[in-house]
Amino acid sequence: MAERFRVTYRIFAGDKGEARARALAVALEQTAEIPQDVVPEGHVRDEILGRVEMLLPEATGRFRATISYSPDSVGPDLGQLLNVIFGNSSIQTGLKVVGLELGATLSARFRGARFGARGLRELTGKAQGGLVCPVIKPMGLPTADLADTAYRVALAGADIVKEDHGLANQPTAPFRVRVPAIADAVARANARRRADGDGSRALYFANLPRGGGDLLADARFAREAGADGLLVIPGLHGFDAIRTLATDPGLTLPVMAHPSFLGPHVLSENTGFSHAMIFATLMRLAGSDISIFPNFGGRFGFSRDECASIVDGCRCANGPGRPILPSPGGGMSIDRMPELRALYGEDCVYLLGGGLLRLGERIGDGVREMVAALA
Amino acid sequence: MAERFRVTYRIFAGDKGEARARALAVALEQTAEIPQDVVPEGHVRDEILGRVEMLLPEATGRFRATISYSPDSVGPDLGQLLNVIFGNSSIQTGLKVVGLELGATLSARFRGARFGARGLRELTGKAQGGLVCPVIKPMGLPTADLADTAYRVALAGADIVKEDHGLANQPTAPFRVRVPAIADAVARANARRRADGDGSRALYFANLPRGGGDLLADARFAREAGADGLLVIPGLHGFDAIRTLATDPGLTLPVMAHPSFLGPHVLSENTGFSHAMIFATLMRLAGSDISIFPNFGGRFGFSRDECASIVDGCRCANGPGRPILPSPGGGMSIDRMPELRALYGEDCVYLLGGGLLRLGERIGDGVREMVAALA
Repeated sequence: MAERFRVTYRIFAGDKGEARARALAVALEQTAEIPQDVVPEGHVRDEILGRVEMLLPEATGRFRATISYSPDSVGPDLGQLLNVIFGNSSIQTGLKVVGLELGATLSARFRGARFGARGLRELTGKAQGGLVCPVIKPMGLPTADLADTAYRVALAGADIVKEDHGLANQPTAPFRVRVPAIADAVARANARRRADGDGSRALYFANLPRGGGDLLADARFAREAGADGLLVIPGLHGFDAIRTLATDPGLTLPVMAHPSFLGPHVLSENTGFSHAMIFATLMRLAGSDISIFPNFGGRFGFSRDECASIVDGCRCANGPGRPILPSPGGGMSIDRMPELRALYGEDCVYLLGGGLLRLGERIGDGVREMVAALA
Repeated sequence: MAERFRVTYRIFAGDKGEARARALAVALEQTAEIPQDVVPEGHVRDEILGRVEMLLPEATGRFRATISYSPDSVGPDLGQLLNVIFGNSSIQTGLKVVGLELGATLSARFRGARFGARGLRELTGKAQGGLVCPVIKPMGLPTADLADTAYRVALAGADIVKEDHGLANQPTAPFRVRVPAIADAVARANARRRADGDGSRALYFANLPRGGGDLLADARFAREAGADGLLVIPGLHGFDAIRTLATDPGLTLPVMAHPSFLGPHVLSENTGFSHAMIFATLMRLAGSDISIFPNFGGRFGFSRDECASIVDGCRCANGPGRPILPSPGGGMSIDRMPELRALYGEDCVYLLGGGLLRLGERIGDGVREMVAALA
């Protein structure tokens, strides 16, 4: 017997009667999507139709409604699961997705991250301490310069060397030229680290520029070229792009997700998803091993509490799938490390962005300093 | 010489100085994405970096900033174009994308719809009148029932028979069973229409359930099975999914885009895109031939003016690419037809949803009535 999954929504309504009517409308909209009186008897009415399981007041004008849905309304595909959770209802204000319980049936169908936090750490060979991840940029530099920076930061002890999400397929550093060059640079740095007795290594994550039918071709090329992981932008290419990469039997590379283009899903109070839902729950559900999100106190407006909720969502034991690594970026300066370390702890990928580039050829010093601060 | 493309943003700021600082920050964030003082001399600073070309007050606390970007910051891929237009800046409030001028260089790179409004009408064989498009649903019904409905509405004169965006790959009507069955039903109806001397035909649009690496496989299957067009959800699978379908040399089927999951990009005043940008400009840019959006006065909250702006965006002569067909859905009842026809005119796909199902086996009468009302 299939176990129904449960989605919790925050509903903005004047009173409980209005909230109940809204919850019933959502249960209908997300499934049969036809007027109530037209819903066919039998399977559609008894099983497919969403059911309002719980409705509680949360604050003045705000309610929490839990609606259960049938796994048979979803089938095998992640896109359709998201469609049931928030498809058409995303176009109506006064509704925010704040919780998801997959239940046994869908948990067996969507297994989450291939590596997860523990697997990723094993790949780096670093037993403890925060993971340090400099970002290779900016766009517009030639491949040789980007590869040179990658070599320096990898040699200095970076755990992950990540391409900027804006390094796509520009003429100055085309994907099929750049990825082999940076993979080679990072491999050379790793060889020197190994020769120096370092038991850990830098993993190189290549940014995939294309979605649609070209996603897997680019991912396979990156793997062949020596990349250790894949960076993908679900806001541009869909959460299904993560799922494709995380489940393809031939790839077996860890996946890192970037928050670009996802902002409107969290920035508005009365539509979209909670921060933890987008940057933890959906990332885990789709199969990402690392979830990048904007750090508090940087140039993005996330609060400390919102960041903490994302971290909790990435780490909690009850899924979806394995715990994964949160990865805050923006405002990650060395002088803020005590404060940031207090919140983010060890199982975290600390992104180091443009500030590091200020060091020029001494960029390795900045990485070493950060590795020490997080040891 | 590459011509820069221009993006116009609505900026929410206290005064012009603050607005200018914000515009400069966006120009930096969307390109080099490093501190201003670290931007390398030469190509990155002179060409790649966004340039604030114009800044005008719009209303109290609101400004319009036009920023130009280099085609070299994009390269060949649509995902990266969207990334430059609104990637990281999507995660900062007080910024809304309201305009896009591609310029000659990117217009040659992104050609837009394969068929467009005119090509689509030619495929139907209907020289004039609004195009009538009943939606096949609900999820949970067996394939035979869905195919039966498709047969009835096609026979009654539907111009397009569209699957509901919620018909994915559910066990009651799996994609690879359902699509051939509905294609066959619509083909039989078309054969009878032809025999009766009808010069027009119904086009069957199959809904593609998967993105990522499976999108093209599903699209090719649908084509082989006899579908005349493809329905895709860019909110779930990315605008690049449309681009993939619109440009694949082997597919050559028209593409219809569904607004599911895109709501947060338009519902908030101070983030995301304007209605016309998402439901007209980006749809045309990606290559959709038909853009579905929520009709005003139905169960979604779009205003008449917002719908009018979408229609204008779909039809305007200056691109991107060919004019395409707007397709309003929700609240499309026969008694509202005079009002709706006055706004939407002839070159429009009128979606008929769940209300039609109330007619049961007489569903064809509802379609005939609508065809007559739009003749």
